[in-house]
Amino acid sequence: MELRELLEKLKDGSLSIDDAIENINAAGYTDMGFAKLDTSREQRSGFPEVIFCSGKTDEYLVSIYRKMVENDGRAFGTRATAHQFGLVKAEISSAEYDPVSRILKVDPVRQEGAGCIAVVSAGTADIPVAEEAAQTAEYFGARVERIYDVGVSGIHRLLSQTDRIRSANCVIAVAGMEGALASVIGGLVKNPVIAVPTSVGYGANLQGLSALLTMINSCANGIAVVNIDNGYGAGYIATQINRLATR
Amino acid sequence: MELRELLEKLKDGSLSIDDAIENINAAGYTDMGFAKLDTSREQRSGFPEVIFCSGKTDEYLVSIYRKMVENDGRAFGTRATAHQFGLVKAEISSAEYDPVSRILKVDPVRQEGAGCIAVVSAGTADIPVAEEAAQTAEYFGARVERIYDVGVSGIHRLLSQTDRIRSANCVIAVAGMEGALASVIGGLVKNPVIAVPTSVGYGANLQGLSALLTMINSCANGIAVVNIDNGYGAGYIATQINRLATR
Amino acid sequence: MELRELLEKLKDGSLSIDDAIENINAAGYTDMGFAKLDTSREQRSGFPEVIFCSGKTDEYLVSIYRKMVENDGRAFGTRATAHQFGLVKAEISSAEYDPVSRILKVDPVRQEGAGCIAVVSAGTADIPVAEEAAQTAEYFGARVERIYDVGVSGIHRLLSQTDRIRSANCVIAVAGMEGALASVIGGLVKNPVIAVPTSVGYGANLQGLSALLTMINSCANGIAVVNIDNGYGAGYIATQINRLATR
Amino acid sequence: MELRELLEKLKDGSLSIDDAIENINAAGYTDMGFAKLDTSREQRSGFPEVIFCSGKTDEYLVSIYRKMVENDGRAFGTRATAHQFGLVKAEISSAEYDPVSRILKVDPVRQEGAGCIAVVSAGTADIPVAEEAAQTAEYFGARVERIYDVGVSGIHRLLSQTDRIRSANCVIAVAGMEGALASVIGGLVKNPVIAVPTSVGYGANLQGLSALLTMINSCANGIAVVNIDNGYGAGYIATQINRLATR
Amino acid sequence: MELRELLEKLKDGSLSIDDAIENINAAGYTDMGFAKLDTSREQRSGFPEVIFCSGKTDEYLVSIYRKMVENDGRAFGTRATAHQFGLVKAEISSAEYDPVSRILKVDPVRQEGAGCIAVVSAGTADIPVAEEAAQTAEYFGARVERIYDVGVSGIHRLLSQTDRIRSANCVIAVAGMEGALASVIGGLVKNPVIAVPTSVGYGANLQGLSALLTMINSCANGIAVVNIDNGYGAGYIATQINRLATR
Amino acid sequence: MELRELLEKLKDGSLSIDDAIENINAAGYTDMGFAKLDTSREQRSGFPEVIFCSGKTDEYLVSIYRKMVENDGRAFGTRATAHQFGLVKAEISSAEYDPVSRILKVDPVRQEGAGCIAVVSAGTADIPVAEEAAQTAEYFGARVERIYDVGVSGIHRLLSQTDRIRSANCVIAVAGMEGALASVIGGLVKNPVIAVPTSVGYGANLQGLSALLTMINSCANGIAVVNIDNGYGAGYIATQINRLATR
Amino acid sequence: MELRELLEKLKDGSLSIDDAIENINAAGYTDMGFAKLDTSREQRSGFPEVIFCSGKTDEYLVSIYRKMVENDGRAFGTRATAHQFGLVKAEISSAEYDPVSRILKVDPVRQEGAGCIAVVSAGTADIPVAEEAAQTAEYFGARVERIYDVGVSGIHRLLSQTDRIRSANCVIAVAGMEGALASVIGGLVKNPVIAVPTSVGYGANLQGLSALLTMINSCANGIAVVNIDNGYGAGYIATQINRLATR
Amino acid sequence: MELRELLEKLKDGSLSIDDAIENINAAGYTDMGFAKLDTSREQRSGFPEVIFCSGKTDEYLVSIYRKMVENDGRAFGTRATAHQFGLVKAEISSAEYDPVSRILKVDPVRQEGAGCIAVVSAGTADIPVAEEAAQTAEYFGARVERIYDVGVSGIHRLLSQTDRIRSANCVIAVAGMEGALASVIGGLVKNPVIAVPTSVGYGANLQGLSALLTMINSCANGIAVVNIDNGYGAGYIATQINRLATR
Repeated sequence: MELRELLEKLKDGSLSIDDAIENINAAGYTDMGFAKLDTSREQRSGFPEVIFCSGKTDEYLVSIYRKMVENDGRAFGTRATAHQFGLVKAEISSAEYDPVSRILKVDPVRQEGAGCIAVVSAGTADIPVAEEAAQTAEYFGARVERIYDVGVSGIHRLLSQTDRIRSANCVIAVAGMEGALASVIGGLVKNPVIAVPTSVGYGANLQGLSALLTMINSCANGIAVVNIDNGYGAGYIATQINRLATR
Repeated sequence: MELRELLEKLKDGSLSIDDAIENINAAGYTDMGFAKLDTSREQRSGFPEVIFCSGKTDEYLVSIYRKMVENDGRAFGTRATAHQFGLVKAEISSAEYDPVSRILKVDPVRQEGAGCIAVVSAGTADIPVAEEAAQTAEYFGARVERIYDVGVSGIHRLLSQTDRIRSANCVIAVAGMEGALASVIGGLVKNPVIAVPTSVGYGANLQGLSALLTMINSCANGIAVVNIDNGYGAGYIATQINRLATR
Repeated sequence: MELRELLEKLKDGSLSIDDAIENINAAGYTDMGFAKLDTSREQRSGFPEVIFCSGKTDEYLVSIYRKMVENDGRAFGTRATAHQFGLVKAEISSAEYDPVSRILKVDPVRQEGAGCIAVVSAGTADIPVAEEAAQTAEYFGARVERIYDVGVSGIHRLLSQTDRIRSANCVIAVAGMEGALASVIGGLVKNPVIAVPTSVGYGANLQGLSALLTMINSCANGIAVVNIDNGYGAGYIATQINRLATR
Repeated sequence: MELRELLEKLKDGSLSIDDAIENINAAGYTDMGFAKLDTSREQRSGFPEVIFCSGKTDEYLVSIYRKMVENDGRAFGTRATAHQFGLVKAEISSAEYDPVSRILKVDPVRQEGAGCIAVVSAGTADIPVAEEAAQTAEYFGARVERIYDVGVSGIHRLLSQTDRIRSANCVIAVAGMEGALASVIGGLVKNPVIAVPTSVGYGANLQGLSALLTMINSCANGIAVVNIDNGYGAGYIATQINRLATR
Repeated sequence: MELRELLEKLKDGSLSIDDAIENINAAGYTDMGFAKLDTSREQRSGFPEVIFCSGKTDEYLVSIYRKMVENDGRAFGTRATAHQFGLVKAEISSAEYDPVSRILKVDPVRQEGAGCIAVVSAGTADIPVAEEAAQTAEYFGARVERIYDVGVSGIHRLLSQTDRIRSANCVIAVAGMEGALASVIGGLVKNPVIAVPTSVGYGANLQGLSALLTMINSCANGIAVVNIDNGYGAGYIATQINRLATR
Repeated sequence: MELRELLEKLKDGSLSIDDAIENINAAGYTDMGFAKLDTSREQRSGFPEVIFCSGKTDEYLVSIYRKMVENDGRAFGTRATAHQFGLVKAEISSAEYDPVSRILKVDPVRQEGAGCIAVVSAGTADIPVAEEAAQTAEYFGARVERIYDVGVSGIHRLLSQTDRIRSANCVIAVAGMEGALASVIGGLVKNPVIAVPTSVGYGANLQGLSALLTMINSCANGIAVVNIDNGYGAGYIATQINRLATR
Repeated sequence: MELRELLEKLKDGSLSIDDAIENINAAGYTDMGFAKLDTSREQRSGFPEVIFCSGKTDEYLVSIYRKMVENDGRAFGTRATAHQFGLVKAEISSAEYDPVSRILKVDPVRQEGAGCIAVVSAGTADIPVAEEAAQTAEYFGARVERIYDVGVSGIHRLLSQTDRIRSANCVIAVAGMEGALASVIGGLVKNPVIAVPTSVGYGANLQGLSALLTMINSCANGIAVVNIDNGYGAGYIATQINRLATR
Repeated sequence: MELRELLEKLKDGSLSIDDAIENINAAGYTDMGFAKLDTSREQRSGFPEVIFCSGKTDEYLVSIYRKMVENDGRAFGTRATAHQFGLVKAEISSAEYDPVSRILKVDPVRQEGAGCIAVVSAGTADIPVAEEAAQTAEYFGARVERIYDVGVSGIHRLLSQTDRIRSANCVIAVAGMEGALASVIGGLVKNPVIAVPTSVGYGANLQGLSALLTMINSCANGIAVVNIDNGYGAGYIATQINRLATR
């Protein structure tokens, strides 16, 4: 119920003052005691809720999947384990699991994606994060081009893909170690680059902090950065951009 | 000259092999000895070159402005001083300077901006960075809504602007100190948020690093981050997004 | 024995000089060889001793619980494991364990809490720390209002609780990831806010350091910060404040 | 105008829907273009606005002081320079300046302070921050006990003040270098300790970060920490606590 | 063989030039292929070699113990496991192991210690490091006074031990969490204090780095710091000081 | 196919324009879907591909070894486990594994190394990294002198090896803890020193970051640094230098 | 007045209870309002007070020097400026100033130093810190051997001084950049080494933090570390050690 | 005098034992009281001494230049100011100064450089550091190819220079901001790359630390790193490599 509608109801007497106050306060979420489900989230953001599986108890996880599939006919979770997949699969036979991206989803009726997001990764070890980004964007309705293993130490591999990268509405650049990929891509394209540092590497990579700093300090324009290993976050904002471009 | 065109010329004999090689190699920049002007940049990126005034010698700065105005009829520089403005103004009478954003530009024929970018800042001390972002976006052709001084410690100020913020194709959230603004905005809007940490604050703010970490770790979706105080970079990527939405 | 009393006894001859010195020196703790039990602690601080269970050997832990229950009729420990609960339960049948907050206590005769402390948490993953704070405050005699899962990315959830939060003598704000919750609450209330950063998050959250920096740099007034995940410490100081308000 | 009142007016027809929306949205601040004065702040927080003088332009600073004195008969600013004092003094003859704490205030009719806050500092070099805390608390209506230069390297100086420290409703512990003062005080008192790390020191003190870490990790209970050199913030929260104790 | 002696032998013909060169070069260690045993170490430093057990292979460990006992009649190792004790015990029946300090030694004929080193620890959790320091000093011939669990949050416990602490030639102050103990002791004694930060704590203690910074920045004089958890190093340098005082 | 050759073919008609474009783009790697094998790498760099075994799936690892041995008759992998060795050995009987350096290689026909690289390590705990460097250099064709356990706390051990160290074309200095070895060697030799910090140590060594900082800040000339524990990288660049010296 | 004496007086009636309490409390310092002069410091520590000149106001500084010279006939201050020297010299004609160490002292009747402290510095840029250490020790009564510019990149310079270094009761090792000097010295001597990191260097030296980490992680035994640039602190603790050795 | 020669003289009586000891000890440097000139440095390292001008007093600087020109006919200093140039020029008329690289040298008879070192820089702001490297290498006898302003955000500029870069014996890669240049070059060349991070940038570049981390974590092989802004150090080690290749 929008504020104007509520006030109109109040004015015409179909709503009491107390109810109006309660409505104004309570609008937008359901209080479940230990959690406040943000029920206005999809309306506000245009995106359905997504499940962060890591650390959830077995029972709780299954009940969330069940409830979301009942409501929406589909569900999408990140950072799931094979064990969690087993639990959900036992309940919902159409559940699928990708051990690389660790995405556990129920998505029986897929539609063709719109627009184009390019997901570009530096090394094969960055693919789990890249796939989390790619599958997130696909679940949210975008078409995705995957361009993997084109790190800057063999720059010809990346350059040979320039046309594909340039044709995307948004590029997701995924790289660990020194994270230089984003800067090179930033110099090649017209459209925004969302950079995802990964924790791939060792020694002074500081669990991805070094790649994050590289990307934040990029000499190229048109680059913004999300958290280390946050493929989901990159897929989300890239979808927002892709939607603007295709609406 | 595109690669295909070049090869066609080579095949039909209108170009020698040596010229072809030189063309392939040299395409895209002009070598000036100490610098290599990236002449293909605007074509590649869709954005004209911009001048980072800080630290440039007087002579060099003036000559760059003169040359850019000759070529394009306009010029745009960031992080300029009042002294630099005096120098440029003496040469180009239509030069303008904004001491808040420190932008020094020559832009006599302005066109109305397209689309909408909301630039939101937390405190008045963040306005210099916010203005750098806003004026950058305007110079690149976007319409900008400024919503300043709506930091989260008086959350009602921000919430009262929700409709204006939601109507933008992209939101630039500028905040120093603890940088919490981006997370709250991220939860209010459908479209992407570009977060700009500023170095405003003291003590444990670590010259903006603290706000950067806040924004990178945001619990809200649809947020990506640029470097500390990098208003220009935020204005640039926001323009890219706004162009996609308005093309 | 207070200093004045001791000196009076010395003057009237009922205490020897050597005894006086020993008394002055030894007052306030019991030397157990490897440890010096701070026996004057409750008198000095107004709070009973609490057991930090983590890392204690089985025998030692059980003996401490037994001794404290003998002396005070109750006992309270933090960061306990289920295994430790088993050990104590075997000795003291009224022992209780909460696997969420990891609090292991013996507290058979509870009294109604006085005053009001609001414990507010950002996400469901922050609940263990929030519960450690809440149960600590309750054990020390405060009434607690729990307001969980009201993180700033869905700000309407928090705002709908404004009245409850404002009515507390002290607010404990518990948040991981970017930790922005404390700043928003700080702007809503008259009374002090004790902020507890949690280690919830990943990547650049630096095991809670990022949330700690956010809270220390808060743009709102009336906020002070305790260590990462230190629910106990927050419950303690909030109780001190609540006692001042209700005495 | 409270929400209920507004809704009642709406219902009885004395307010239009559009006005109601505007009222709901706009309540609580005055939009001055570049800034949004938080006019509901004192009502919400119980504290008047305070001026952070550092970095403000001359004109702007004077106009703020003038306006605040007109409205409230008094004004209080932190981190002011002697130059700024001259400017304000020329306008408002009753303005006073303390070069140690750098507080610039207009406060002609002082009332006796209520309750008691002890401000304890480790070294003489910490006095500027301690005075900012003390004078802030006094301006907000608290009585303050100053106990300075009682650092832990001569612990007898601190211990001799135990009674005065214990009698306060709240203790502000100000220390730079290694910041150990807060832990010792925490073990001596019943009431809360607000710890303020200062940037006093050199070498590995990391501009106060080292003292901040010391205080956050304190082995004593009842300690919470504010930002480095944030005397104002400590005075503020201590006043909140003192008010609870004296209401 | 001293240089002068060698040169004299060379001059009088009892040593060839080649032998002299070899002697000059090779003096001071035995080359075992993968390791160069520093055989001149005890002569140079006045201390026998000590075994860092952590990470050593079973066979290698046992052979080192066997060889050292053969040569010197005793052996001393730090950071040993119970498993390693079993292996050594099977070979050398007089081997002893202390699971607290993790010291594994063969030291059948102990002599009374000389002089006095006070080992002072803040909490019971710091005792493993304190014992490593104490037993190291004892093995190297010093008499040790242990004063444990006298952390600064109950300062009376520490102060009651002032005379014992003052009577030592050197004080080893062992503390984790915020590490404030060293500063208080530094203000009480005439003789040097060797401070040992421990990794005891959580959250922002940064695995002991916070305590290290506290100790390095101490406001007291006469304090120098060794590495985190380095009880052995503290026992070593304290022994050096104690030897100077007792020679 | 070089660019000139390709253009000549195009001109004389033996290659179509489309083929030419494809050739220009595709040259230099083989696209395998999830990975882009950099087939021009050895030609470009003069070094064969090497396998980073850590984290690779069993099947994938074995297939890579099989393919590389088919193509080149040899293969070389770093950071392998004993389990991985078992898998490869079952396929390729000539596979060898060194548990110290964790190198897993197939290299049946070894040739004598050319030139000389000295690999110098500080302690025996640094030998795994030193061996990774040494064996890498040997695999790539260099002769290696190993000089281990010559840390600076017994400087005579290092100095006695001065002649051997000076005779090398390049010195690899491997050290953990404080990493001082590189500076001393840098002052002894004419030729370049490649410094490898190791993660050996504890406490404030920060997993090797401390040694890295030591080496980067060296007061000696002729030192450059690779990542923590990066023996492979040091062996690689030392081989490059050795090849220049011996070509 | 010692505690026993006081109690005896109380018992025999020559002291009232109130006076006794006051005596117990007040003993050991003089309260000057803003500062508490630690009058029992020399008795407790065996060292006179020293003046940290940096940041002191002109008047305050001069009055302190005057008072100390009146009391003790001498005075010693660190980190003084030439301007401060002028002020003090105008009052006390025998005042001396060393612009290198920045020590400003009044010390007309010098006595020959006892024992021996070796002050060893790596580079000429470290001499100011080394001199602060050396002159501090001399003022406190020690004999000092200066051995400067013997950094490890020319290790023969250091080794040629081995005998002089070994003959000292304590060695102060002063080094910036990578700070490797302490480890080499630690391996050469029997007696304790006090390491002083300096802020000499640039880039990744992090204002001396890098040298501090090097020294804390030293592979040699018998080394303890004071704060960056803390020559005074090193001179102080070295004097303590030297006194023990020479008493 | 070599050791063998010395011993032969001793044996044949032409040298006394005392002289021999003195010779062994003193060999290799000249003791000037406050400094020990490393006179054997050029012999040991093959490089003449170089002057670090920054922070040297006027007199001292001039005397060093004079002495070096007397001895060697040339002199070379880094980080000089224009003021220092004036001083030296007044003494030595052939002195030259380059305000970009801040090199102040006397080098009247230049010889043609040998071999080839490529100095590649990312942006024009990196040129001062690049020139320090280039001129250092030239002074030490190398031929240098300068390739400036080829940062990765316009990768075609760099790629067009591939042949020139590949032809060098060693490449110096100079870059600030995110420092990605080194990785791309590392993938293009056969020979070693010495990477120099610069402090060019702002915000999260952490004064060059971010670029340093990028380069240390490079995904390309054949890269080693020197300190931030250390153009001299890079020129030095590149010369060592170039000499090996051209000897």
